[in-house]
Amino acid sequence: MASSALTLGFDADDTLWHNENIFEKVHERYRALLARYHDAATVDRTLFATEMRNLERYGYGVKGFMLSSIETAIQLSAGKIGAEEIQQLIALGQDMLAHPVDLLDGVVETLSALSGHHRLLVITKGDLRDQERKLARSGLAAHFRHVEILSEKDTSSYAAIFRRHAIDPQRFLMVGNSLKSDILPVLALGGAGVHVPYRITWAAEHVETPPPANGRFFQLKNVRELPAVLATWSASL
Amino acid sequence: MASSALTLGFDADDTLWHNENIFEKVHERYRALLARYHDAATVDRTLFATEMRNLERYGYGVKGFMLSSIETAIQLSAGKIGAEEIQQLIALGQDMLAHPVDLLDGVVETLSALSGHHRLLVITKGDLRDQERKLARSGLAAHFRHVEILSEKDTSSYAAIFRRHAIDPQRFLMVGNSLKSDILPVLALGGAGVHVPYRITWAAEHVETPPPANGRFFQLKNVRELPAVLATWSASL
Repeated sequence: MASSALTLGFDADDTLWHNENIFEKVHERYRALLARYHDAATVDRTLFATEMRNLERYGYGVKGFMLSSIETAIQLSAGKIGAEEIQQLIALGQDMLAHPVDLLDGVVETLSALSGHHRLLVITKGDLRDQERKLARSGLAAHFRHVEILSEKDTSSYAAIFRRHAIDPQRFLMVGNSLKSDILPVLALGGAGVHVPYRITWAAEHVETPPPANGRFFQLKNVRELPAVLATWSASL
Repeated sequence: MASSALTLGFDADDTLWHNENIFEKVHERYRALLARYHDAATVDRTLFATEMRNLERYGYGVKGFMLSSIETAIQLSAGKIGAEEIQQLIALGQDMLAHPVDLLDGVVETLSALSGHHRLLVITKGDLRDQERKLARSGLAAHFRHVEILSEKDTSSYAAIFRRHAIDPQRFLMVGNSLKSDILPVLALGGAGVHVPYRITWAAEHVETPPPANGRFFQLKNVRELPAVLATWSASL
């Protein structure tokens, strides 16, 4: 690896592989299951409120979602929901955990082109076992030098990764679909961020104000455009 | 830190702080909740079987336990359990996540005596957010150079930690309450293991055959005896 090598961090869910589309299908089935108690908007709003109330205790990931979906179903049905329906919710969550990993378009080619020249990391959040399983199933693991699964992606957790791997923030670029978790904290620490939006953004990842275009922030439609952005950015270093 | 410094790994649950005693109380309440459906032995046996069946998909930790306890309650009641009782199970799990951290006797003094001389790590498994929260609440975080929360503690995960932190296994000693997770894999890699049994051992951590006493395996009643063991072991290096 050349001395001009950079460190590139990649988010996982909805950056390397599809994730929100799985949640989208689960939400549809969830609304259908609760349709005799409440309309879809109420179901969505109440489930999201439960998830946010539980986020500090459960953290991110499918297991916390499962627990919040059960709690919400009991609440919205005023305790009338049956054990059989709750078992269906558990099965729905277990299906999510067993779901095949469906890579996003352009990911394999882009990682293959970059991993020989730069140090690549996965930096993601969620349930430990679930994220490790998805990475193993993805076939992408060999491209990455390190895998960091965090309970939160904020400036202090990125700073800890920079210390741990002796990363110069000015030579670090993060690629991800969430402005809040992948881009803003990295820009704040002096790194660069490449936002590749996914078709759906989970409401908890929404930010009102995008970052200023200061030569360290880029927005792409497809990760295939990453090598060209890298060339531009690294020329400015 | 002297050049004679060693690296000492510490398990967390039931090594630094009480954990199984919390599960023990929860199991009592769980048996009481299901007493009208089945006897205590059947409840225990079925819950453990569910946990083991789900271990690969959920991993270790309270959230997986909560989901397995709900699934088992539905099964053992043949679907008769009410939503209100399932809500009680969720509340029981949430209480576990909010439980104060109760340090084991001798931990504070021992860590204080050792952390100035050696490199101390926490090496634990379970839910990411829950373990981070317990460490933060424990007041012990400042003693540890790194915290590793793993989805499994086996030879390959210890070997990955040795690589990541450039640890010489021959100068590494692991302290923990589980022969299976804390001692056997470390001995297999050439390190030393100090077993400090807790009053209760979770059945999934049980091993039939203890390791041979080969000068690298020690058993203590209290972690206070650790400095004396360290002196013996390090003299043999």
